Amino acid sequence: MFEQLGLIGCGLMGGSFALALKQAGLVQRVVGYSKSPSTLQRARERGVIDVEAPSALLAVSGADLVLLAVPVAATEDTFKAIRHLVSPTTLVMDVGSTKSDVVAAARRSFKDQLAGFVPAHPIAGKESAGVDHADARLYQGCQVILTPMAETDPAQVARAQAVWTALGARVREMAPDAHDAAYATVSHLPHLLAFAAMNAVIAQPQARHFLELAGPGFRDFTRIAASDPSVWRDILLANRDEVLAQASHFRAALDTLEATLRQSDALALQALIRQASEARARWQLGGQIDAAPPTESP
Amino acid sequence: MFEQLGLIGCGLMGGSFALALKQAGLVQRVVGYSKSPSTLQRARERGVIDVEAPSALLAVSGADLVLLAVPVAATEDTFKAIRHLVSPTTLVMDVGSTKSDVVAAARRSFKDQLAGFVPAHPIAGKESAGVDHADARLYQGCQVILTPMAETDPAQVARAQAVWTALGARVREMAPDAHDAAYATVSHLPHLLAFAAMNAVIAQPQARHFLELAGPGFRDFTRIAASDPSVWRDILLANRDEVLAQASHFRAALDTLEATLRQSDALALQALIRQASEARARWQLGGQIDAAPPTESP
Repeated sequence: MFEQLGLIGCGLMGGSFALALKQAGLVQRVVGYSKSPSTLQRARERGVIDVEAPSALLAVSGADLVLLAVPVAATEDTFKAIRHLVSPTTLVMDVGSTKSDVVAAARRSFKDQLAGFVPAHPIAGKESAGVDHADARLYQGCQVILTPMAETDPAQVARAQAVWTALGARVREMAPDAHDAAYATVSHLPHLLAFAAMNAVIAQPQARHFLELAGPGFRDFTRIAASDPSVWRDILLANRDEVLAQASHFRAALDTLEATLRQSDALALQALIRQASEARARWQLGGQIDAAPPTESP
Repeated sequence: MFEQLGLIGCGLMGGSFALALKQAGLVQRVVGYSKSPSTLQRARERGVIDVEAPSALLAVSGADLVLLAVPVAATEDTFKAIRHLVSPTTLVMDVGSTKSDVVAAARRSFKDQLAGFVPAHPIAGKESAGVDHADARLYQGCQVILTPMAETDPAQVARAQAVWTALGARVREMAPDAHDAAYATVSHLPHLLAFAAMNAVIAQPQARHFLELAGPGFRDFTRIAASDPSVWRDILLANRDEVLAQASHFRAALDTLEATLRQSDALALQALIRQASEARARWQLGGQIDAAPPTESP
């Protein structure tokens, strides 16, 4: 399908994309760039990329598909570094967890060359980052949100959909601000709460003792608190206003629960817990997205 | 080791205890009572109990080991129902998630017959409750906290330790109030926060849409929000003051994180996330409890 993938950032997300494209026979050649020489070398050794590019711009040269898989904070600089070789016929995607900031950076950087840019957010990851963990199956069964801009060529959106679908992902389109509101709710705020929950425990003198007693509920509730600090600093800052708005919703719900508890109002407390419990019991990962049985997936 | 187990409450916790004792060859006969006739019948059919008792008191009659595995709110009534047959030579345990309230109820009910009572909290459970899910392996590898009272006979504490250890659990002794403070921190507050997080999502008009987009992080973070409403109503009420105190610690930690985010103070935000992330990455379920390799466990 593609002649040349220009891969900028060869870590878990970018490396997995290249491996998956190759395994699916969808690309002839991968030219990669990484700011880290050792990552670039490992990417070559692992067969993630075929050719090492000496700069982001040169990774884009000659590519009909470009994936930016760099830390959120490096996105705009990377856009600026490659803008002179971006054309409406090149499909350019990112993999960032926030989209309004990426769209704004793309507007500032690409100006009137936005037709080929399709902002993307694959909901995938692993606890271990880096090129050594890149995996051709990372995107199988995951969701990918595309947030095309008014300037984006619909034909490029269709190509983006086709690529991710071919890698086994379920694709959905949304507006950038709707995306950011949704992920503030179901991902970014939960991370903030998990960080706060861990910090609240370790701020107490008996922290070590408390942690020795924790069980499987604590393990699952706090799992996301172990996430990478610089990645999550950037995500929370990039989506700050939506995250703070969701924090207010959360505080209101916690206030209500605490008030019934403080008053020992058993009936009201049970009703609030039941509401949460039934909603969570009804929810299933990916359950409401795709009614087709998984065996029929491409 | 025991001639007769008197089992009061034949659900997941009680039923699993009886099955495990039988499998380990530690009891000759199980006499069971449940408020629910259908549970009692299923317990007999599944071989969880050998004999159905028509009341809690008659389940205790002739028993040298008694396990109360009833809802927290039914604990005191059950103590009062059996107190005339409780003697210092009968080992009596409960399985409640809070201990100060159980100890107080035992003092009110048993008065000077406290020598045989060893309050117990096995940190075990499943998402599916009820006798049909009772499982002889439920307590294998789990922690059991014993909170003996000043009046408890040390020989009975030693017997309690021996029983749980024989079922594959790791036993630890604590004071009831220290237990409740610790579990407010690592279990009860996380449940309250997970309930609040779910309620905050579903209170918003776009809730259905948001939930469709949620991924594995949300799944794990909110898993405990699906817990049983009446069980958790009782636990939170029983440990109200400690839970509210822990909620204050959490709010302070959340305030600090939100303040750095509101000010877009990237350095301070990253430092706070790093603190949480490193603490969580260092923590391991049961990791700090028992240095002995699992193969050497009894």
